[in-house]
Amino acid sequence: MFTSKQIFEKVNCAVENLSLLREPQSLYEPIRYALSIGGKRVRSVLMLMGYNLYRDDVDSVLSSALAIETYHNYTLLHDDLMDESDLRRGFPTVHRRWNANKAILSGDSMLVLAFQMLQQNKKNLNDVLDCFTETALEIGEGQEYDMMYEIRDDVTETEYIEMIRLKTSVLLACSLKIGALLADAPLEDIENLYHFGEKIGLAYQLQDDWLDVYGDERVFRKNLGGDIVSNKKTYMLINAFLRADVRQRKELQYWCSLREFDRHDKITAVTRLYDEMGIGKMSENKINDYFCQAQKYLDAVNVDDDRKNMLRQYTAELMNRKY
Amino acid sequence: MFTSKQIFEKVNCAVENLSLLREPQSLYEPIRYALSIGGKRVRSVLMLMGYNLYRDDVDSVLSSALAIETYHNYTLLHDDLMDESDLRRGFPTVHRRWNANKAILSGDSMLVLAFQMLQQNKKNLNDVLDCFTETALEIGEGQEYDMMYEIRDDVTETEYIEMIRLKTSVLLACSLKIGALLADAPLEDIENLYHFGEKIGLAYQLQDDWLDVYGDERVFRKNLGGDIVSNKKTYMLINAFLRADVRQRKELQYWCSLREFDRHDKITAVTRLYDEMGIGKMSENKINDYFCQAQKYLDAVNVDDDRKNMLRQYTAELMNRKY
Repeated sequence: MFTSKQIFEKVNCAVENLSLLREPQSLYEPIRYALSIGGKRVRSVLMLMGYNLYRDDVDSVLSSALAIETYHNYTLLHDDLMDESDLRRGFPTVHRRWNANKAILSGDSMLVLAFQMLQQNKKNLNDVLDCFTETALEIGEGQEYDMMYEIRDDVTETEYIEMIRLKTSVLLACSLKIGALLADAPLEDIENLYHFGEKIGLAYQLQDDWLDVYGDERVFRKNLGGDIVSNKKTYMLINAFLRADVRQRKELQYWCSLREFDRHDKITAVTRLYDEMGIGKMSENKINDYFCQAQKYLDAVNVDDDRKNMLRQYTAELMNRKY
Repeated sequence: MFTSKQIFEKVNCAVENLSLLREPQSLYEPIRYALSIGGKRVRSVLMLMGYNLYRDDVDSVLSSALAIETYHNYTLLHDDLMDESDLRRGFPTVHRRWNANKAILSGDSMLVLAFQMLQQNKKNLNDVLDCFTETALEIGEGQEYDMMYEIRDDVTETEYIEMIRLKTSVLLACSLKIGALLADAPLEDIENLYHFGEKIGLAYQLQDDWLDVYGDERVFRKNLGGDIVSNKKTYMLINAFLRADVRQRKELQYWCSLREFDRHDKITAVTRLYDEMGIGKMSENKINDYFCQAQKYLDAVNVDDDRKNMLRQYTAELMNRKY
């Protein structure tokens, strides 16, 4: 049995040792770059931890973990291009460092590489591929909803939750499911692990939104408040509009309608409104709610508690990055 | 046994009846559009004809043909975006009719859909997927070389042939191979069919380049001479530079260096130089050469001649679109 830190090291090591012995270099260099700039490797770690619930030879399924990591970083690469983001984890995005065409084409090849890596392990391959393709389609749908909601003003809480479920949660769920499938786990466990990942994913994304307002800039080393600045229809903004009295709604609308404004002023004003309405607390409750729902699914997984605790601890740590 | 026309109808019918019962519509509508604007369906027809060499129940492998058709149209969609093309088969390209983000995202989903369709048939699935992923990587590499060569002046004939092999031929080869794999054909036949497709693909692309200079505009309903206008380093331009005497080289360089020019004048001048040097004939010989090489691979396929003749006839027709 491995700790999450040991598993994280295994993933990083596998990414570093990834030999993409293909030509031309100009196509594969951006792929290496996108994979090397790291992050927490949450999805591949979850996959390996899902496997490690049942089996100890996690090294034997590293190719599938790499597949998931490659897939996830391809989605970031193409999302950054579509969102015109300049930075990813503090590094220039691929379309900034190279250009848009390089981002399109090397992203496309990463998606194919992910399939190629996933196919290496033949254990329950049909189910693994079914889960993976369905998830990849859902993630595309989530990204489409996300872009659609940017230009809509009447996004509901239900729509928002479904969007983040598609865009974020299903990949966490799919990662755990693939880990369990590769370990030949019982069907019931596989489904429970999927739902565990799904609920954790929802809590994780809502937490991400919460941190953008209430997080500590010194910890995150990035500009917070970006969602407020861009009027992103998060769980918080949607509920602020639902809870606002006449004056508060007027103020919110005022800040959301401004085309030119001082970034700091807008963040301060909207945060104050959130505080007045208890939106931060409301959000924390929702996060907790999903986190507790997740635990129940993990409880139902028919594996010794000492094995499950590793996963419990890791996901709790993921949620404890508040300050 | 079916004629190529019957098989073509089967593919078109399957594309028309494709039920993409997924949401949001805004993501799947461009996919339906890209698939509906047709073309000759060469790759999926070849796949089904490869299958039909051995078995008559071609309807049972239509999902794999759809996969190849979906994959091919995804590459066109993303290539058109990268090349900033306005039209595809006379219709506005997806990024023109919608926008670049829609083209990126719906293209991505088409690639995933192609995998999902391919996974439906479990026959020799590992080999089918291996062939498909390797081919998809090669096609990305071909596109990268193509873009690299746009800004290089010293592209050799060998490099050009390898580029079109990757960008065009391997998918024809892979389509035939997948058809044969699904029919559980003997290994030797599968390899011969692959090489048959590869050589046909080279002949086909060289023919495409030739037609851009010597084709009949009334037949192709598109502006010819595009390769000359854009200085595309085709087999013909590369060999024109190799064969040119001092005056001819000077003239070629003159036309290639002009930033502003009359389109018709440039096409006429370069075509005249090609004629002087016998480049058209040289190109026709090369096309014939690859076509004959292809036939030898088909000859070696261990199947009755009446079955093989269908394929022979179809590929001959493909090559006979000169006027």
